[in-house]
Amino acid sequence: MIQFYAPDIEKELCLPEGESGHCCRVLRKKEGDEIIVTDGKGHRFICEIIKDNPKRTELKIKGKETFKLERNYSLTLAVAPTKNADRMEWLAEKAVEIGIDRIVLIRCERSERKVLRPERLLKVMISAMKQSLSTFLPLISEDKPFKDFINEDFGMAQKFLGYCSDLYPRKSFVKECSPGREVVVMIGPEGDFTEKEVEKAVEKGFMPVTFGDKRLRTETAGIFAVAAVDVINQLQNT
Amino acid sequence: MIQFYAPDIEKELCLPEGESGHCCRVLRKKEGDEIIVTDGKGHRFICEIIKDNPKRTELKIKGKETFKLERNYSLTLAVAPTKNADRMEWLAEKAVEIGIDRIVLIRCERSERKVLRPERLLKVMISAMKQSLSTFLPLISEDKPFKDFINEDFGMAQKFLGYCSDLYPRKSFVKECSPGREVVVMIGPEGDFTEKEVEKAVEKGFMPVTFGDKRLRTETAGIFAVAAVDVINQLQNT
Repeated sequence: MIQFYAPDIEKELCLPEGESGHCCRVLRKKEGDEIIVTDGKGHRFICEIIKDNPKRTELKIKGKETFKLERNYSLTLAVAPTKNADRMEWLAEKAVEIGIDRIVLIRCERSERKVLRPERLLKVMISAMKQSLSTFLPLISEDKPFKDFINEDFGMAQKFLGYCSDLYPRKSFVKECSPGREVVVMIGPEGDFTEKEVEKAVEKGFMPVTFGDKRLRTETAGIFAVAAVDVINQLQNT
Repeated sequence: MIQFYAPDIEKELCLPEGESGHCCRVLRKKEGDEIIVTDGKGHRFICEIIKDNPKRTELKIKGKETFKLERNYSLTLAVAPTKNADRMEWLAEKAVEIGIDRIVLIRCERSERKVLRPERLLKVMISAMKQSLSTFLPLISEDKPFKDFINEDFGMAQKFLGYCSDLYPRKSFVKECSPGREVVVMIGPEGDFTEKEVEKAVEKGFMPVTFGDKRLRTETAGIFAVAAVDVINQLQNT
């Protein structure tokens, strides 16, 4: 099954340009063919192609299905972009496949890369959503200063800070993370968070944690956290 | 801390060519400098540079430390190479960082890529071992036919087969995988295992499993399995 992405399909009744090209040029879909489209907001549409224009494929909606996220937890991953942009792209791809609600790129004191091409990361995430046949596109927030992020209102969420140094007492992420909860995890840049950053995060209720006794790269720590939260919640559900 | 890799250091008392170049040319280490070297077999050596030759750095061993793997489990991941070689490389890198004992590239009926450049994959694994300051280099077996792999003697290991179709009843990997055990996980090619392959594997004691309700790419299923085994074992240790 192939799923196309059109965030505003109900309003615009067409596929965006890139998706139109894929549909009409690459897959050679024609007028009258049926295709499956998601808006990334939990809906899937059965559509008939009215005009097979590879720039703007016009559609008629013939059916609509509404999905609810089956998980009883949510996960926000805030990560300092790595020097190498590819590593961030695969983290985003894998996180969307395994399951995540929001990715935040944070700007830390020791961030080596401050900016990523946002359109590239979003493209990777859309493609991962389509590949895994999900109808939910996670949110992405770009270039958020560390201070703004820790000051967000996360309600009752469990908040963790992956920290490499032992300047602060750290607990085990895997053991502290509870199933069925909102979880927020922050992962620092290659050079780690500064002491001052850790201090401020702790003040705001973030718990410094370790992911085990290994030294993980930034993006490996990120994907490990995403998988761990999924495993912990799967173990809970019986 | 930087760690160099020399598999036969005790016999040869020098760094291999690539490592020598990195040591003497890139890092400009000189005669008399001390460096840290691992043989990938659980040993770490403090060495003095006797001759700073960027093709063959000669060393004198001044100290030797022996490590034992701290985990009480072991993990073999057998995976059918993906069409895209990069995806296999990052799977190998991440698996080494998080923790694995052996990676086996299996040749399945529906394998799209039969061969990978072995030297490239090994290079990625060595670099991941160095990066995570481990002294254990996992084994890699290349291009193993499916049949040969399932006929290996895995002793008392728990054996799993990640399977996408529901032609066979599948259990939850996360729930079936026990801590403190040897674990073997097989991941199929992009087109999945054939029914015949699943049948044969089941005969040999492999349990068909699912990693959750998501559709994961081959390499994502691989890294998810590696992370899950680590999480399950971390949760056990108190």
